[in-house]
Amino acid sequence: MSDIKLYYRNVLSCVIGKEHGISPRQLRSLGTKTRPIIRTIQSLREKGLERYRELPYDRSNPRKVKALVKRLRPLCDDLVVLGIGGSALGNIALQTALNPYLYNLDPAQRDGPRLFILDNIDPVQFVSFLDWIEPRLDRTIFNVISKSGRTSETAAQMLIIWDMLTKRLGPGQLKEHVVATTDPRTGTLRCIVEQEGLMCLEVPEGVGGRFSVLSPVGLFSAAMCGIDIDRLLAGARAMDKRVSSEEFLQNPAAIIAAINWHYYQQGKTISVMMPYSYQLKDMADWYRQLWAESLGKARDTKGRLVHVGPTPVKALGATDQHSQIQLYREGPNNKLFTFLYAQRYPRDVRIGPSLQSAPELDFLAGRTLGQLLDAERKATQYALIVDQRPCLDVIFDKIDAYSVGQFIYLYEVATSIAGRLFGIDPYDQPAVELGKDATYALMGRPGYEQLLGQMQQVMGLDQGFLV
Amino acid sequence: MSDIKLYYRNVLSCVIGKEHGISPRQLRSLGTKTRPIIRTIQSLREKGLERYRELPYDRSNPRKVKALVKRLRPLCDDLVVLGIGGSALGNIALQTALNPYLYNLDPAQRDGPRLFILDNIDPVQFVSFLDWIEPRLDRTIFNVISKSGRTSETAAQMLIIWDMLTKRLGPGQLKEHVVATTDPRTGTLRCIVEQEGLMCLEVPEGVGGRFSVLSPVGLFSAAMCGIDIDRLLAGARAMDKRVSSEEFLQNPAAIIAAINWHYYQQGKTISVMMPYSYQLKDMADWYRQLWAESLGKARDTKGRLVHVGPTPVKALGATDQHSQIQLYREGPNNKLFTFLYAQRYPRDVRIGPSLQSAPELDFLAGRTLGQLLDAERKATQYALIVDQRPCLDVIFDKIDAYSVGQFIYLYEVATSIAGRLFGIDPYDQPAVELGKDATYALMGRPGYEQLLGQMQQVMGLDQGFLV
Repeated sequence: MSDIKLYYRNVLSCVIGKEHGISPRQLRSLGTKTRPIIRTIQSLREKGLERYRELPYDRSNPRKVKALVKRLRPLCDDLVVLGIGGSALGNIALQTALNPYLYNLDPAQRDGPRLFILDNIDPVQFVSFLDWIEPRLDRTIFNVISKSGRTSETAAQMLIIWDMLTKRLGPGQLKEHVVATTDPRTGTLRCIVEQEGLMCLEVPEGVGGRFSVLSPVGLFSAAMCGIDIDRLLAGARAMDKRVSSEEFLQNPAAIIAAINWHYYQQGKTISVMMPYSYQLKDMADWYRQLWAESLGKARDTKGRLVHVGPTPVKALGATDQHSQIQLYREGPNNKLFTFLYAQRYPRDVRIGPSLQSAPELDFLAGRTLGQLLDAERKATQYALIVDQRPCLDVIFDKIDAYSVGQFIYLYEVATSIAGRLFGIDPYDQPAVELGKDATYALMGRPGYEQLLGQMQQVMGLDQGFLV
Repeated sequence: MSDIKLYYRNVLSCVIGKEHGISPRQLRSLGTKTRPIIRTIQSLREKGLERYRELPYDRSNPRKVKALVKRLRPLCDDLVVLGIGGSALGNIALQTALNPYLYNLDPAQRDGPRLFILDNIDPVQFVSFLDWIEPRLDRTIFNVISKSGRTSETAAQMLIIWDMLTKRLGPGQLKEHVVATTDPRTGTLRCIVEQEGLMCLEVPEGVGGRFSVLSPVGLFSAAMCGIDIDRLLAGARAMDKRVSSEEFLQNPAAIIAAINWHYYQQGKTISVMMPYSYQLKDMADWYRQLWAESLGKARDTKGRLVHVGPTPVKALGATDQHSQIQLYREGPNNKLFTFLYAQRYPRDVRIGPSLQSAPELDFLAGRTLGQLLDAERKATQYALIVDQRPCLDVIFDKIDAYSVGQFIYLYEVATSIAGRLFGIDPYDQPAVELGKDATYALMGRPGYEQLLGQMQQVMGLDQGFLV
């Protein structure tokens, strides 16, 4: 069993000093604050709330996913996910973490279809994709993911693809090539499913988009591409035990939430997640949505204006040592760093023999790339600690479906605890609505004429301010 | 001629209010501050400093690049760049901006070799790449980019590849497959070039890594992949005229620098660059290095401790509307937003006809994806402005080599002006050294034993803090 571990010593005052470090007394006080929150969450769970917590225990949906995968894999060379935000970030993160770097390019490196996750509507990008997929439609499966089916970006993609499928493969072919992941009962996409007889999977009720990766939203594309979703869910269940503990210093989610909250109060408003692992690169992107959308809120749960929210930033080691570390070490001490890394690499490569013409590179010869990456990471952490910058480590024994399942669950629960520490609702996203309505107004949707009028007063390029 | 334009009205107090907006008086004062800086830079330039400013006028290096490209393109199916930081980010940004999304995957969409830019040392990622390239070595060109040749990451990659080339293709083959871009006179890689007789290009003297994309560092891989480097340089020259103007409100670099500096002083310490364009996605990443490494400094030019530096953040529209906009609108008003977008798309796609089963999507039918992307962007900007968040626009007529050349030069000059406003040296990176030394110490390089001893006192996992 390879559990992931949290290491929190490098935020303590004994390591990074009193000004920026957490004292033993402060640590105890953080424990006192989180304990009732864990208890509250537990009792909400017993009342059938906090539904995302139960996803790893669901047997029915994973079974449906696997049945569909079994049927579709032999028919499919290209799998295309149409989704955005919570309907794409988890899928991308799983694929990068658990399949090879050149999975799509190199047939020898994949066991399953190529995977495209189209989470944007850039026309130039989309046309490049259409050029690729059009001659391959007969062996392509589209997985459209939207709880409501009314997300403009996903709906637009869907209308383009439906039209292409119908024109190229003939009417009635949608049902052979489309899997819809949507609300089991209501919504636009549900209506389309019924009308067209599409294959479908469920977005479980009460689970928000950014907490949905362990539901069919994330599981279907993962299983299609050969990822072991049973191990993923087993990892999440193993983590559930640990993050349910009321003992602060035994609950990694509570520690992550409390330390983040503490530093936000101290003016460290930026939370940098820096994997030293290409595989975990997009997990940092998944976290970026989870953290920003859950914790960035104007009002607390009592309705008072608070305008809180740490800004999550993703970085990548060792690459960003040559891009961000200058700022991270010498700029304002306004960041908390979380390093993600693995202790073992399933594959490694030895650095070639030294060159006569470059004896100064002898220290590299005969070592492995993994050893160098580890050294770079430790060196960076050392440099940050010397400059009194707080660092957390999330340590994977090795990166596999089981540890990735743990990681996902750990951060979901950390987010829900952090939400309570900030005093806000981590599950809503009220600010997204105005942007959606404004898009409807600009696209001429009936009923939004008044908003369009308001917008025109503010928008429009005034030539006098164009340089 | 398609010039890029800066639009700055949405940072003014008349749009976003007095608390967060810039008043006419403040704007004049920013002009007064930047004018002498423009003059200083101009006189440094006349003394042969600020060398990156002259890159677009260099005829010799681009000629050498083109001669090499002409010779190598017919021999090459895969081009591999070994480099990191300033020796990779510009190359990646040019490729994403100016070649199709599926360039590497789809032979029909490329005019040139596949391009791999390996800017990390993750062993699992690297091995996946080696599995791909090993059987293709005879038609592969490696471009190793390092001014010194002593960057550990690039040196390690180089030793691995040299060994593989020699073993697979036989001794003496390096010179057929390697182009080194390095210092013209000194350094480790220069010695290797001489010893092995490698093909080579120059990193011009006095040009730092993050300002080097318009030198052979960025030009070679771009030209190999069919990008028009003459137009790129022409764009930079066109921008040079505009950013040399002492008239504040006619100099877009001065306005960008001054507005960023102003907001940093006001507590808006985060600078978000949000392209609404997949093509410009990696330009935001390039900017992230330029901005962070240039402006994040502990000491000012007089040696006083200041710990300044805005934190650059990259985002991507429309995707990040479903990830970050909740935070950007409702969280703390501590960010300046810069939107990048194009007014014309060379290719667009019409959204398919409406579905009987989903009349609520009728508003999308018959419009184009480009129209939807524009509407999403305007809607997001409107929502931010309503919430008094300052926004700048950098508007491309269309995205091509000429406008991208302008953009690069614009931001390089903006960075150099911002450095002077912050009172720091934008061209050094002192904080990177300790990390490098610490890496040497951990890798057992002779001469670093004392540092290793110091590190061991601080580092090492103490089991008592592992959860």
